[in-house]
Amino acid sequence: MARTTIHDIAKALNTTAATVSRALNDHPSISEATKVMVRSTAQKLNYQQNRMASSLRSGKSRVIGVMIPSAEISFFGSVIHGVEEIAQARGYNVLLFQSNESYQQEVQGIQTLLQSNVDGIIASIAKESTRYDHYLEVKKRHTPLVLFDRAIEDLGVSTVVIDDYKGAYMATEHLIEQGYTRIAHIAGPSHIKIFHERLRGYVDALTHNNLPVEEDLIVYGKVSIESGRERMSQLLQLKQVPDAVFAVEDFTALGALQAIKESVWSQPGQIGLVGFANEAFSAYITPSLTTVDQQTTAMGREAAQLVLNAITGDATTETLPQKIVLDPKLIMRDSSRRTSLKPDTF
Amino acid sequence: MARTTIHDIAKALNTTAATVSRALNDHPSISEATKVMVRSTAQKLNYQQNRMASSLRSGKSRVIGVMIPSAEISFFGSVIHGVEEIAQARGYNVLLFQSNESYQQEVQGIQTLLQSNVDGIIASIAKESTRYDHYLEVKKRHTPLVLFDRAIEDLGVSTVVIDDYKGAYMATEHLIEQGYTRIAHIAGPSHIKIFHERLRGYVDALTHNNLPVEEDLIVYGKVSIESGRERMSQLLQLKQVPDAVFAVEDFTALGALQAIKESVWSQPGQIGLVGFANEAFSAYITPSLTTVDQQTTAMGREAAQLVLNAITGDATTETLPQKIVLDPKLIMRDSSRRTSLKPDTF
Repeated sequence: MARTTIHDIAKALNTTAATVSRALNDHPSISEATKVMVRSTAQKLNYQQNRMASSLRSGKSRVIGVMIPSAEISFFGSVIHGVEEIAQARGYNVLLFQSNESYQQEVQGIQTLLQSNVDGIIASIAKESTRYDHYLEVKKRHTPLVLFDRAIEDLGVSTVVIDDYKGAYMATEHLIEQGYTRIAHIAGPSHIKIFHERLRGYVDALTHNNLPVEEDLIVYGKVSIESGRERMSQLLQLKQVPDAVFAVEDFTALGALQAIKESVWSQPGQIGLVGFANEAFSAYITPSLTTVDQQTTAMGREAAQLVLNAITGDATTETLPQKIVLDPKLIMRDSSRRTSLKPDTF
Repeated sequence: MARTTIHDIAKALNTTAATVSRALNDHPSISEATKVMVRSTAQKLNYQQNRMASSLRSGKSRVIGVMIPSAEISFFGSVIHGVEEIAQARGYNVLLFQSNESYQQEVQGIQTLLQSNVDGIIASIAKESTRYDHYLEVKKRHTPLVLFDRAIEDLGVSTVVIDDYKGAYMATEHLIEQGYTRIAHIAGPSHIKIFHERLRGYVDALTHNNLPVEEDLIVYGKVSIESGRERMSQLLQLKQVPDAVFAVEDFTALGALQAIKESVWSQPGQIGLVGFANEAFSAYITPSLTTVDQQTTAMGREAAQLVLNAITGDATTETLPQKIVLDPKLIMRDSSRRTSLKPDTF
């Protein structure tokens, strides 16, 4: 069978080859409806665009580069699904680079994505990064850039984040409503804004509910299972043990849960626990983990929309950076349920 | 602002675009002095060379492309770490593309990686793929290609796999040693070789231990939590319920565990369970999951070595495809432990 050409698609839709070509290349003069029709017909007819030839002609690669700290954190995997959904609907492919939380690798990754001639970059910043010159380089080259979740507003680029303050506030208030009164927080490195915001949300929820904020009950971890376990052990050695813990994210919460389970002083259920991020495992551990969902797919979709709008938009007018803030959602499970009377003293 | 072109550089230096192009591509007809001047002007004007076009002409990108079915399966995340370790040590970067188990997306991904001018490709095949013309295209272009885990030997390329037969044999024999006698198998799609090999290992372990192979006890799932749950429910409705299950991989095992927990007929521990892949969650669920470790990091390292040797090797002599088979490792945890007497009948 002969290979399907744009002429076959044009014929099937009773339109011109030029229109089909423009639609397939996401040209602004073609309506969204037409683009959708052309693409679905192209797929039906098994049309294979010669991407290499067409990108050499246009100078566009029709590829979006996504920089993530780690593919093993399901939060990022989930965001990528949102990015891919929108990208594919608009005829773009997605290449990934993982920084492994390292500044050096992040710099290498940005260079690699630029070398690969991606049309735009979506990125979440590595834990270790405290310099952002590589992102400024992307800006200087006028390659559209959108930051998500771990974003730096000072860079003057569009960002998509959730309201971390609100999520932490909701998590802490949920524990208060369950009747817990000595609520500890295992925080993250506070130079990273999202972690700092979660600390603020925790503090304000306590204060607004007339509970004291105790220095002893705030410990700083490294955002890992091991660190969650260590910090929780530390909390369990306090004279006055906390009756609940809000962990900065789910891996920390998982480590804390292990420490609680190993402790002779408590049974699961006696110490309330809430995490943050709704990682894939959190529904399946015992007790299942109450956590804060970050609308990951929506985050990916929004980031993709922003970067694609910048890519396909009018290049002569620079648009102002946009900031999209998504609402977090509390997912109530067993780990925060008040199952027994609070032990008065240990 | 418009993107800087070679014409802008030529204008700034009062020379021709052809000279600029040759200088940027290190052409021997251009003097060193001119090359230096062109490069410094290019940098000053923020010129981004179209590496895609220029490397098609000459150079290497020093990038390895890795095609994975899903970044959310930690098995693949782990393999990537092994790939990155070796790649970085040899000055290469790694770009990822996820097929989401779709043939269409896998084809798109291979095109995207080729278009990005990667020096070599490491890939694991999507569940849905039953045609491999896109991989033949990679071969035809003489871009080094190595397949790992879900590999097709007929393609005549180098492969890195573990001994799935042996892993399944070990898993099943472990259940037999624990005293289970009615051991079911939730299999995967058997057109995928690794799943077929695991089925063979299960059957042979039973046979060699003088246990009957019962058709009723072999069910075929779709390699997902949901499918594991469904297939297990089906097994729990048998007149003679199995006393143990070997699941083809950990997500299937997780679904099976949920079905077991929900069943009124059993308590966790009464039905022995073994998975395959040692996914990140498997140590943390209750009961913790006995599973087969696939030496993921070693697999990534071996694949990277093979592809880099092909990239840097003598291009005039085609080397024969190599096949590396790694040994699996049984990880014993609670889910397979014999904790109670076998209930005689249900």
